[in-house]
Amino acid sequence: MSAESRFLTLLRLLANDPGAQGLQDDVAVLQVGGVRLVLTSDTMVEGVHYLPTDPPADIGWKLAAVNLSDLAAKGARPVGCLLNYALSGDDSWDAAFLEGLGEALSRYAMPLLGGDTVQMPAGSPRSYSLTAIGEASGPVPVRAGAQAGDRLYLTGPVGDAGAGLDLLRSNPGASGPLVDAYRRPKPRLVEGALLCPDVHAMMDVSDGLLIDAARMAEASGLAVTIDHIPLSSALELARGASTALQIAAAQAGDDYELLFALPPTLKPPVRAIPVGRFSTGSGLSLVIDGAAMPLPPSLGWEHG
Amino acid sequence: MSAESRFLTLLRLLANDPGAQGLQDDVAVLQVGGVRLVLTSDTMVEGVHYLPTDPPADIGWKLAAVNLSDLAAKGARPVGCLLNYALSGDDSWDAAFLEGLGEALSRYAMPLLGGDTVQMPAGSPRSYSLTAIGEASGPVPVRAGAQAGDRLYLTGPVGDAGAGLDLLRSNPGASGPLVDAYRRPKPRLVEGALLCPDVHAMMDVSDGLLIDAARMAEASGLAVTIDHIPLSSALELARGASTALQIAAAQAGDDYELLFALPPTLKPPVRAIPVGRFSTGSGLSLVIDGAAMPLPPSLGWEHG
Repeated sequence: MSAESRFLTLLRLLANDPGAQGLQDDVAVLQVGGVRLVLTSDTMVEGVHYLPTDPPADIGWKLAAVNLSDLAAKGARPVGCLLNYALSGDDSWDAAFLEGLGEALSRYAMPLLGGDTVQMPAGSPRSYSLTAIGEASGPVPVRAGAQAGDRLYLTGPVGDAGAGLDLLRSNPGASGPLVDAYRRPKPRLVEGALLCPDVHAMMDVSDGLLIDAARMAEASGLAVTIDHIPLSSALELARGASTALQIAAAQAGDDYELLFALPPTLKPPVRAIPVGRFSTGSGLSLVIDGAAMPLPPSLGWEHG
Repeated sequence: MSAESRFLTLLRLLANDPGAQGLQDDVAVLQVGGVRLVLTSDTMVEGVHYLPTDPPADIGWKLAAVNLSDLAAKGARPVGCLLNYALSGDDSWDAAFLEGLGEALSRYAMPLLGGDTVQMPAGSPRSYSLTAIGEASGPVPVRAGAQAGDRLYLTGPVGDAGAGLDLLRSNPGASGPLVDAYRRPKPRLVEGALLCPDVHAMMDVSDGLLIDAARMAEASGLAVTIDHIPLSSALELARGASTALQIAAAQAGDDYELLFALPPTLKPPVRAIPVGRFSTGSGLSLVIDGAAMPLPPSLGWEHG
């Protein structure tokens, strides 16, 4: 059991309000007056969630995007956010961070409402949190709602962001669509809002297709089979199509596509790629080109 | 201009939603459905906002209390919070932090709804944020609403927490009421809710009486005279009553009493101590035992 898992076990004892949903999901849901608020908060730590060489504007964009992606997975409309910011000691760095953050907030219509600014001791890695508040536009899908027989879909290919990170690790000056996918993820807000009335379960793929599908299946008390791993043409062009590439893409995080379970009788109302199906039982199975494959040792990004 | 002031100038360009209130206040106010939400977020950094030797349960308590105090200053009822937590690498430390956090949340009826947990690189000072959501119980007082002729009040004495911090700096094993005031501040939620219909302006004294009164006066476009600095008997007993002690207490932060402006025709509906008055003009004046005093070089805790 990881340190984070042990901590979450303790935290669940404290978070016993129904709105916390047992901390099983990425968001909290709070009924206030006649409105259902969807609340989420994500922290990004230098050297853990981004590379120290990443441009500050991209870090600012990404902090907004990862929180917006959590709202998207619940079909929520952004209503505002609060920023917790650690000053860099370099005004132009801070200004560029805010510019990138502001671009994402403006693109996705999420007002910045407040927050807190702190100075870290010199030489510390810095961290930033954003807390986003959304308003549910319909039913709020949980990750635990998949049913046996449901098809599993993705709103787009996976692996681009992970390949972009690999490129940047060997060359911080790299650029192109894979690097963009890593640095400037696009939250699927429109797709989430259109999907939320129909899906049985939905989440964003932040940690990797395999691990996030396994989590959805476990939360739903089902087995899941992944039988297709969609890759972008940019990724196939850069790496050459192969089974190894498909597996790597399914283990990679940071793509922020939506992963959802839909009854077999329904067609997705948005562009989506079928990637698997749920059945009774438990566990994750992987099929590539019709052949059952052993699972890789790591299914994706495990926090802590 | 400090780094934080420069950053806030940029941030205000971004935070142009009315709910952000120009970032002039400690909270944001968001109208959702028929409800006014009061939103606040505070970050505590090791070595900046607390001593590395402070017991983890007290750090957890204080993180909750400082956010609850911001809700108190707006007369808001807590409805929930999100925690951003940096794992310590020591399970028993983390458990003790949660125990203290949980004590405060339970005492003041604020449910923990969710958040995010991260692992910092080894050796980094850690930081924690809490974002608190409240529901306005009446008018939401701003700090800019004081009027000429208003009396200025405090809900309790100042200086205890600062004296506690001084004691702990020279002896991390110190204990007693002053140390308790520093480590376990009590948010004035009941007082804030009772005061909010009557006050012209209200805020909590987190940075010191002199600096916070000066901020209220500046935001209101007025002058303020502080003519009384209330001290606790614990503080006078420990330090011996003196003018120097009164000035030190008025510069000290972390007391979290409420500071409010009330028309001279009204009597406060809660226990409160008159400490000054507002008049036309600008600036802060200090009068002790009827004699005008020069202002000390530092008025209180200046962020950044």
